[in-house]
Amino acid sequence: MCPNVLQICSPADFHVHLRQGALCELVTPHVRTGGFTLAYVMPNLKPPITTTDQALAYKAELEKIDPDVEYLMTLYLSPDLTPDEIRKAKKAGIVGVKSYPRGVTTNSDGGIESYEAYYPVFEAMQEVDMVLNLHGEVPSDSATNTCVLNAEPTFLPHLFKLHVRFPALRIVLEHATTRAAVEAVKSLGPTVACTITAHHLAITVDDWAGQAWNYCKPVAKFPDDREALREVFFLGSDSAPHPPHTKSTSTPKDPCAAGVYTSPILLPLVAQLLESFSATDKLENFVSGFGRRFYKRDVDPAGPVKTVMLRKVVGQKIAEEWILGDQSVVPFWAGKELEWEIAKEV
Amino acid sequence: MCPNVLQICSPADFHVHLRQGALCELVTPHVRTGGFTLAYVMPNLKPPITTTDQALAYKAELEKIDPDVEYLMTLYLSPDLTPDEIRKAKKAGIVGVKSYPRGVTTNSDGGIESYEAYYPVFEAMQEVDMVLNLHGEVPSDSATNTCVLNAEPTFLPHLFKLHVRFPALRIVLEHATTRAAVEAVKSLGPTVACTITAHHLAITVDDWAGQAWNYCKPVAKFPDDREALREVFFLGSDSAPHPPHTKSTSTPKDPCAAGVYTSPILLPLVAQLLESFSATDKLENFVSGFGRRFYKRDVDPAGPVKTVMLRKVVGQKIAEEWILGDQSVVPFWAGKELEWEIAKEV
Repeated sequence: MCPNVLQICSPADFHVHLRQGALCELVTPHVRTGGFTLAYVMPNLKPPITTTDQALAYKAELEKIDPDVEYLMTLYLSPDLTPDEIRKAKKAGIVGVKSYPRGVTTNSDGGIESYEAYYPVFEAMQEVDMVLNLHGEVPSDSATNTCVLNAEPTFLPHLFKLHVRFPALRIVLEHATTRAAVEAVKSLGPTVACTITAHHLAITVDDWAGQAWNYCKPVAKFPDDREALREVFFLGSDSAPHPPHTKSTSTPKDPCAAGVYTSPILLPLVAQLLESFSATDKLENFVSGFGRRFYKRDVDPAGPVKTVMLRKVVGQKIAEEWILGDQSVVPFWAGKELEWEIAKEV
Repeated sequence: MCPNVLQICSPADFHVHLRQGALCELVTPHVRTGGFTLAYVMPNLKPPITTTDQALAYKAELEKIDPDVEYLMTLYLSPDLTPDEIRKAKKAGIVGVKSYPRGVTTNSDGGIESYEAYYPVFEAMQEVDMVLNLHGEVPSDSATNTCVLNAEPTFLPHLFKLHVRFPALRIVLEHATTRAAVEAVKSLGPTVACTITAHHLAITVDDWAGQAWNYCKPVAKFPDDREALREVFFLGSDSAPHPPHTKSTSTPKDPCAAGVYTSPILLPLVAQLLESFSATDKLENFVSGFGRRFYKRDVDPAGPVKTVMLRKVVGQKIAEEWILGDQSVVPFWAGKELEWEIAKEV
């Protein structure tokens, strides 16, 4: 193949926020704009997706907006969730359950505080082979020197404990941001993985210090942490759209929203980032192979396979914003240039 | 004395930014509004204050705006500064020289990259007993895992080296933000001190994550670092006004300005913070005694002594902004409440 062309088989984004209502209408098509044909959809809506019926209704809405994407659905871990509901969800094709610690990110007020209460649910998930998606941060607490910088390493003992108790339960530590997390996941064998976002391959704490558009949870950490992420497990973009005014402006009373939006530029962006640290050869596994294997969603050669071609270009400027009706979103790296573009889907 | 009254002898702020032009007109009177009668004035103007004549002209401007404050002047360390200029500055009553590493804060593009070239200047400063004020951060560098979080600890070897070479030179590590810096300064004896800002006694990284109004350089660090600062050396507020739109809004191209503005509420704020960690007994030394002693500016009992009385109040709301003509500034904790107010000056 020519050196200025990359070919990816059925790119899959294993962590994406598609929101609700008018914003959902705007951002859902961006999954394909960004080169992806599978989206693992987060359930932190208002109200959160806690039942099979809600998840199926949400999936139907997404399919109405863009039927050409495979949406994998998750439930929001909450006291409403029972082992029976897990079995029902599995039968309905729901793939995972997402756990949010209380109060650490967007719409996580109903998040969990302790895992023991959920052991019967995890037992059922292990039995029916559903995936547990963990937002792996503990809430800040000055008394224990816990803040956004060490919230993820401080969470890791919970991950170890869960894995020991449920060794066959497939667990994904979502959007890992630290060397400590990467090392922990590597030590835990094939049932534990982590997703890596595109933006955490690019930025460190310096990039969000004073720059709201690069602020997300978990926050980007040290350069050495970024280095560790570049060993790449598999992509979950955590692409998280917010109305621009909630990002751009902070008043003394209201901080800005946490989230970086990468969906519409995702595949070219990832290609460029991997190329920047000489890892283009890992691209296909990062955006498709590794994640699909973990999720048991290997591409079926007999089925409808989508191959995406990327072509090297000179300075393709990223749009400043995307607009639909009264909704708009500003992407990561708005106004900067990308050196890869999607040439075609086959 | 009544428990709801505090009495402070001649409060002194040993690090303050009074800016230029219309903004200077607005903020200079806030030194006294905040309860202070001495201001150690930073030289990072455009262009920077690099000569005695510039410093004296700037001092005259400040005195025209508010003659009731004692302004101590500093020069901006740059290649323009010679040992002869140091001797001239000393004779003219200039107190110190401020060093900014290149590019780490507001107007530091002309900052230094290595200290060796300045040894003749430091030699002269030691000889005439001028103070060296260090912005103690190194520039970020991914290759060495240096970022805003460890820029200060990484700077400390420079401090040790300077102190060993110039043991009698009085050095102030400005706005210390880490336990490492506090421990380093404590280990270096009476010629080395550090200033502590009010806001770094209050905030940690969590407070500026996504909240531009709390973003400053050096950035606030871990809760444990804040704990170390609370041992309190002496106050240098680093009160740094910026036009509100440069704080509140970040576009993808322009991050927000670094700086927290505390001048107009400084003494009540510091009283409240020290009270919050049961250190009200340290207030007078923190805001006057320790700093004055280090700077050899002890209050002369025969001279004009200003005593400031603070009174405990119930919920005194901090102004949302201060305005003069077309200039405005938004203070730290805008809209929040203070429990101390300045009752009177005697």
